[in-house]
Amino acid sequence: MSKPTDNIPGYTYGSAEVAKARVSVEDLEQLKISVGFTPDDEQHLRRAGEVLAPQVRKIVEHWRANIIASIPNLARHSRSPEGSPIPEYLAKSNLRFEQWILDTCLRPYDQAWIDYQQEIARRHTSVKKNQVDGVTSTPYVPLRDVLAFTAVMNETIRPYLAAAGNSEEEVENMHRAWCKSIQLQMTLWIGPYSDTRVEPSEW
Amino acid sequence: MSKPTDNIPGYTYGSAEVAKARVSVEDLEQLKISVGFTPDDEQHLRRAGEVLAPQVRKIVEHWRANIIASIPNLARHSRSPEGSPIPEYLAKSNLRFEQWILDTCLRPYDQAWIDYQQEIARRHTSVKKNQVDGVTSTPYVPLRDVLAFTAVMNETIRPYLAAAGNSEEEVENMHRAWCKSIQLQMTLWIGPYSDTRVEPSEW
Repeated sequence: MSKPTDNIPGYTYGSAEVAKARVSVEDLEQLKISVGFTPDDEQHLRRAGEVLAPQVRKIVEHWRANIIASIPNLARHSRSPEGSPIPEYLAKSNLRFEQWILDTCLRPYDQAWIDYQQEIARRHTSVKKNQVDGVTSTPYVPLRDVLAFTAVMNETIRPYLAAAGNSEEEVENMHRAWCKSIQLQMTLWIGPYSDTRVEPSEW
Repeated sequence: MSKPTDNIPGYTYGSAEVAKARVSVEDLEQLKISVGFTPDDEQHLRRAGEVLAPQVRKIVEHWRANIIASIPNLARHSRSPEGSPIPEYLAKSNLRFEQWILDTCLRPYDQAWIDYQQEIARRHTSVKKNQVDGVTSTPYVPLRDVLAFTAVMNETIRPYLAAAGNSEEEVENMHRAWCKSIQLQMTLWIGPYSDTRVEPSEW
């Protein structure tokens, strides 16, 4: 696996610290069918991962500095309750954000991947937000903002997919596979958000 | 407004029967910003509506007969608990499905539109599913299946957007606007699904 650094703070993919999800690989297979995610899409994502790997820092910078930072409603989630920047928090979570792009494209979608989807989702809810970095910020990111921002990611990733000179059709295939993966991930994310035994409604 | 028929059973858009949503037009503006949905996208959707209007029956037929019908996990939601088809239910909900395509492209996204998003979402939860058509079927459609299937709709709508001979760039613009609108709608749909004062977790 290609990684932006060898040691990403708070990145616990595949480790024993990550709680097991109730969603099984069989459940995921059902969801893949509903999303229309096929083995071809897996291949397109592998290629996308190769194309995106040298660009992940630039992409996350684009999302963070050019987009999120200019939307107060989103920017607040990486700032203090008073609205001050927390550069260390941003730096660490950016590294994880970069790695997430790679994981989306290059990891097998197995139980470890499902479990880590749950972990990332929880880190956006009041159950775990801020904890891994030991910061004080907003208590959670409302699910609707997460879901909304995926549309921006889907739109803005496309030029980066085209940056290696692939044909329009190849770029389209990679982009389609990316969009389906993101929606697949969102179907997993709503689980932790909907688990009202653990937390109140945070949509 | 262009409509597939003048009188769609159970289609109550803009009527007094539709409950008011807690989401305001101001909330929607915030969500539009997070989704990256701009006035340009509105224009692209208007054009998409003109292109799709003569095709809505074919599109819904494609989704229903070619895709949903072959995915048991999805097909069951328009069948009896024993798995028998309910042709009248399907026919009526298909007409509403067709109209939803037009509403997505051609309606102004105002309070009536927000309220009707909530209404449609509720009709997929145990609060209202089956009621408007007076049928016995599954009690609700899990949110994850709704969310998953939007990826299929986004993928399969594209050739229909290209059917009027627009340039690749125009088709891309229409498609991008469509995808953003769908994600915007999903951010509204999760509201009723997350309202655990009304119903249990149905993700």
